[in-house]
Amino acid sequence: MKIFVTGGAGFIGSQLVDRLIDQGHEVTVYDNMSFGREEFIRHHLHNPRFTFVNGELLDQSTVNKSLAGHDLVCHLAANPQAIEGTRRTRLDLEQNTLTTYNVLEGMRLNELRNIIFTSSGTVYGDIPDLELNERYGPMLPISLYGASKLACEGLISAFSSLFGIRAWIFRFGNIIGPRATHGVIYDLLRKLKQDPSTLEVLGDGDQTKPYVYIDDCLDGVLHCFENAHEQINLFNLAPPSETSVKTIVKTLLEKTGNTATKVQYTGGVKGGGGWPGDVPKVKLDATKAYKLGWKPKYSSDEAVRKTIDDLLMSNP
Amino acid sequence: MKIFVTGGAGFIGSQLVDRLIDQGHEVTVYDNMSFGREEFIRHHLHNPRFTFVNGELLDQSTVNKSLAGHDLVCHLAANPQAIEGTRRTRLDLEQNTLTTYNVLEGMRLNELRNIIFTSSGTVYGDIPDLELNERYGPMLPISLYGASKLACEGLISAFSSLFGIRAWIFRFGNIIGPRATHGVIYDLLRKLKQDPSTLEVLGDGDQTKPYVYIDDCLDGVLHCFENAHEQINLFNLAPPSETSVKTIVKTLLEKTGNTATKVQYTGGVKGGGGWPGDVPKVKLDATKAYKLGWKPKYSSDEAVRKTIDDLLMSNP
Repeated sequence: MKIFVTGGAGFIGSQLVDRLIDQGHEVTVYDNMSFGREEFIRHHLHNPRFTFVNGELLDQSTVNKSLAGHDLVCHLAANPQAIEGTRRTRLDLEQNTLTTYNVLEGMRLNELRNIIFTSSGTVYGDIPDLELNERYGPMLPISLYGASKLACEGLISAFSSLFGIRAWIFRFGNIIGPRATHGVIYDLLRKLKQDPSTLEVLGDGDQTKPYVYIDDCLDGVLHCFENAHEQINLFNLAPPSETSVKTIVKTLLEKTGNTATKVQYTGGVKGGGGWPGDVPKVKLDATKAYKLGWKPKYSSDEAVRKTIDDLLMSNP
Repeated sequence: MKIFVTGGAGFIGSQLVDRLIDQGHEVTVYDNMSFGREEFIRHHLHNPRFTFVNGELLDQSTVNKSLAGHDLVCHLAANPQAIEGTRRTRLDLEQNTLTTYNVLEGMRLNELRNIIFTSSGTVYGDIPDLELNERYGPMLPISLYGASKLACEGLISAFSSLFGIRAWIFRFGNIIGPRATHGVIYDLLRKLKQDPSTLEVLGDGDQTKPYVYIDDCLDGVLHCFENAHEQINLFNLAPPSETSVKTIVKTLLEKTGNTATKVQYTGGVKGGGGWPGDVPKVKLDATKAYKLGWKPKYSSDEAVRKTIDDLLMSNP
């Protein structure tokens, strides 16, 4: 297949590209390198099956031209920092909603028929006591990031119905692993390196979320893509367990040998979230994906431990 | 109260304004007059409690300036012709999603705290055999209009949570009544006037939807606004009955005395819809609003009959 990967030089995108190239596909990476890194795709640059386009998704004409001739679009590009959307309220609308419209419009014009989209568990909003499956409603996101991902799902659904596009949409837990360029573990490690005496942690530490190891995430995406054949295939992807920020902090301090570090929690906003818009307690029910045969190898706690090891190894 | 009504010169907006002025409120109408009509608001122009702004919602700075000092925003402005979004795929994104973002951003900057928003039953997508309540999911709209209304709901939800805005969101059936400037009854009457010998009707005629008479719609909006006090108050608004297009056509021909008219159905696209993106069978469960004390006066069939009478009277 000829596969187009937006955000293909980023944390998740570049590792998806590694897999697709390994499987023998032709891959075009479209990335504006705002969060993508050249080092994540450097090893493919001389591969004749690999093309790199340094482009903006907001530039519709370049998107249209670049999409031509592909069999599948993996649309991963997005603002990766949900917290930023609170300060700059237009950010997620532009970087997620408008870019997704442009991708879909480009697909329509080029008559492309298949899209994989990385949505997010944040579309559900703050529903603390329920394990949420894909049929949950109403959808009342509490962050502009979540709102934009919900908007993207709606756009994909409408384009799918109107123009015969088949879609695989994934609502993820927190994806972690090597090449992470953001997220709680990455941020805490960076802070700890700057000052091992004190570690400031956003929230009250009781935030609990399902962490998905990157390999499990990619297994899930590719497994569901191959085995789900509806017009719109919507899946939660997360292991059946969660990890608290306190556990992450404890594991981090143990693994880095910082037993004397003083931990300061900033205290929760609105129910314990780390920042306004942060959902403090997330439980995703991924039974639908499990039933289709996806089995995550790592529990949430294991994903956290493995990611800390990965990040310490690559950036000791 | 000082109330800001976007789309306040349109079909629904102008009749909401009539009520609000009657109740003694100060009202600002913000309308770009693309579908609004001067004749719908003319009777208020000399009222000191009435202000008219001829403005674009896409113009953020005018929106910001105009919003200042209001207690409540009724955001009704939208592309009213869902069918157009199929031809011009960016239309609903711009006229509904981006404008709603601008309204919310203007509210944030001006520290306004209350919004009424007219969403739509189209957010649910094409779910033929279920009476849909507000907790239904997943949300998979089949039109770009529905997708944009879903995006607006998500934006309102996020702004509500982040910036302390209280919201009343209404997912309507098809609202009909005097001053209609679009919709199936309006379109068929216009066609019949041009050529009473033949009437072309989009779809197979078996489309059935709940039609809401404008007075019931406004009763419902104002009743729920006064009596629902959650942070986000989400309501379906529709009578517990539906009307088929065939019934509309039959009633129309009887009431206009066109017994000899030849009716030609274009045939359904995808399950009988009138056009791509049209949901052919809609059933909305509005129990939540009924329980709060809203009681529509007119069944769907009665709303249709009354609207035909209204439109024939105003435009014989």
